[in-house]
Amino acid sequence: MRASLEALSLDALIVTAPTNIRYLTNHTGSAGTVVLTADAIHLLVDFRYQASVQGLQTSASACPTLRIWTVPDSYDEALLACLTEMAVSTVGFEAGHLSVARHDWIARSAASRGAEIALRATERVVEQLRIIKDAWEIVLLRDAARRLTTVAAAAITAARPGVTERAVGAVIEGALREAGYERLAFDTIVGSGPNAALPHYRAGDRVVESGDVVVLDFGGVLDGYCCDLTRTVAVGAPSAQARRVHEAVREAQQAAIAAVRPGVAATAVDAAARNVLERHGLGEAFGHGTGHGLGLDVHEEPRITRPRPDVPDVLLERGMVFTIEPGAYLPGWGGVRIEDDVLVTDNGCEVLTDVPPDLIPKWI
Amino acid sequence: MRASLEALSLDALIVTAPTNIRYLTNHTGSAGTVVLTADAIHLLVDFRYQASVQGLQTSASACPTLRIWTVPDSYDEALLACLTEMAVSTVGFEAGHLSVARHDWIARSAASRGAEIALRATERVVEQLRIIKDAWEIVLLRDAARRLTTVAAAAITAARPGVTERAVGAVIEGALREAGYERLAFDTIVGSGPNAALPHYRAGDRVVESGDVVVLDFGGVLDGYCCDLTRTVAVGAPSAQARRVHEAVREAQQAAIAAVRPGVAATAVDAAARNVLERHGLGEAFGHGTGHGLGLDVHEEPRITRPRPDVPDVLLERGMVFTIEPGAYLPGWGGVRIEDDVLVTDNGCEVLTDVPPDLIPKWI
Repeated sequence: MRASLEALSLDALIVTAPTNIRYLTNHTGSAGTVVLTADAIHLLVDFRYQASVQGLQTSASACPTLRIWTVPDSYDEALLACLTEMAVSTVGFEAGHLSVARHDWIARSAASRGAEIALRATERVVEQLRIIKDAWEIVLLRDAARRLTTVAAAAITAARPGVTERAVGAVIEGALREAGYERLAFDTIVGSGPNAALPHYRAGDRVVESGDVVVLDFGGVLDGYCCDLTRTVAVGAPSAQARRVHEAVREAQQAAIAAVRPGVAATAVDAAARNVLERHGLGEAFGHGTGHGLGLDVHEEPRITRPRPDVPDVLLERGMVFTIEPGAYLPGWGGVRIEDDVLVTDNGCEVLTDVPPDLIPKWI
Repeated sequence: MRASLEALSLDALIVTAPTNIRYLTNHTGSAGTVVLTADAIHLLVDFRYQASVQGLQTSASACPTLRIWTVPDSYDEALLACLTEMAVSTVGFEAGHLSVARHDWIARSAASRGAEIALRATERVVEQLRIIKDAWEIVLLRDAARRLTTVAAAAITAARPGVTERAVGAVIEGALREAGYERLAFDTIVGSGPNAALPHYRAGDRVVESGDVVVLDFGGVLDGYCCDLTRTVAVGAPSAQARRVHEAVREAQQAAIAAVRPGVAATAVDAAARNVLERHGLGEAFGHGTGHGLGLDVHEEPRITRPRPDVPDVLLERGMVFTIEPGAYLPGWGGVRIEDDVLVTDNGCEVLTDVPPDLIPKWI
């Protein structure tokens, strides 16, 4: 981080994105502002978090060079006081996270109080570090992904004729807690029959029927780190259509996983999955990206998507962790998605999740 | 909303805050952008949400004048295309929500493509409407609050010697689901013994002991609307200190509830609670605000806090819904918080939650 500050010619960087703050300080509260300088990490928190932050600092995971500032009322006033006391002049901010209103207040208030502070937009300074996981993060992400095996078994067992999607969701969430996750990584998806055609459906009142294809998509958070898994299973005997689509999505997922290694573009991994689905006449049915990074956020960099003119392509590096989750959705009929989590290794990838991908779950 | 557009001399308003988008369109996805004009609500969504948005539009809660735009890749490109096609020139945006990066991209790209669009910062345009709940919202909020009674009974029964905070949290979350909530309104807090002194603690591995005071703070979301309750109970015989602090906080909460009626300043309600705690020598121990609005967000306007120079005071109006939750925290010993949800009525307030506030729970 400090090398980044120097490269950007910044005296300080204001960090306002909550997961970036957690990454830098361990502070998990919903409020807080960080000011990073060459020699310290200044954490501004209000009364509610004083005791927990002090506690963190006496623990084994204490953040070196952390200086805690108490925010009496307004975070922006406290931020300005901090910047003024440190007499910094060129100050970066996270342009993708700071709102126009906060930015303008800081700029205006600094000027009106005679503080010579020039604000500079930055992009992805902390995210650029977060994209490569360190050894400690990999241990956590691997553990988080492995614990999904028992959750998937419970989910697949629960998806039977006569049960509502919501009841299957309740089983999944109970199993996630049982497995030790501190919370859900995102709202659980149980899409049965035609609802499986809605990639971002949640779980409703529909009763699962024999002949349905059911999409089960869930994940948990372990010590702040997220995992994410999707399986699609047949309830009763699957139709020829279900077999065909499932087989195509599985082949697409295998192709994408096989394409992962350092130096390969993220868009090439997406293309590997997309080409398979196009060959099966399902290109139009695959409307989303192939994957997303996992870490403190359940959707973070790298994005495994089609090339986009406005987004620079990312070359994969060892230590990146992301999902591979192609799908095919046929409105009215249903859909299939298969998702695993992978870690980029020296010459390929390690699949962190460990759940058979079968349409007909023989293994439970 | 349209009257607001006219008052602000805007041809259109870009809405980017997710709960504001939901309020205007019913769309619940995690992505989406709205452009509001005098004659239509334009909703920009990508592939993933097309089917669910189309479904909403054929339901009883269809949004009149909604026009759905498909976003092929970039939301910002699609937004610019929408603004250009509508030939609007003075366009508001939500300064408290839009990031500097998105704002600058839109302004720069519009200019470079010869579109004459002047962006104007706005504050709280949708929030100003959301602060007063309509009849339908009140029905939902009342239902959401009432369902907390059984959850509280389960929570208080579960808080016994020998049980971890985390296990009590699991009981609460099971009871929330059982009561019909679609998800948690926020991470459940179970703070026992000294952990009760941390107002934003969650639930950890500490085992509840006889003699503890335990803070239980939880809430659920029902059809998008949030409720929020805190009770503090003694496990075993409470100490004199526990009785004294609980009695003071209860008196402070009663005073604040008694102060609620139309025309009263939100800060006066805060002062009513704060004065009681100060009289009991607990002013320093009450470091947070007295309450926050409830609606589609679990923390929204009005804020029931001390006067702040940078925030205009809100006068209470009929139809506002918020929490009343004074607390007192003594580091090392523990803390007490008592929280209910209230609706401002014509001449006072209706307490929506219905759970006895006793330190010693005789009622379960």
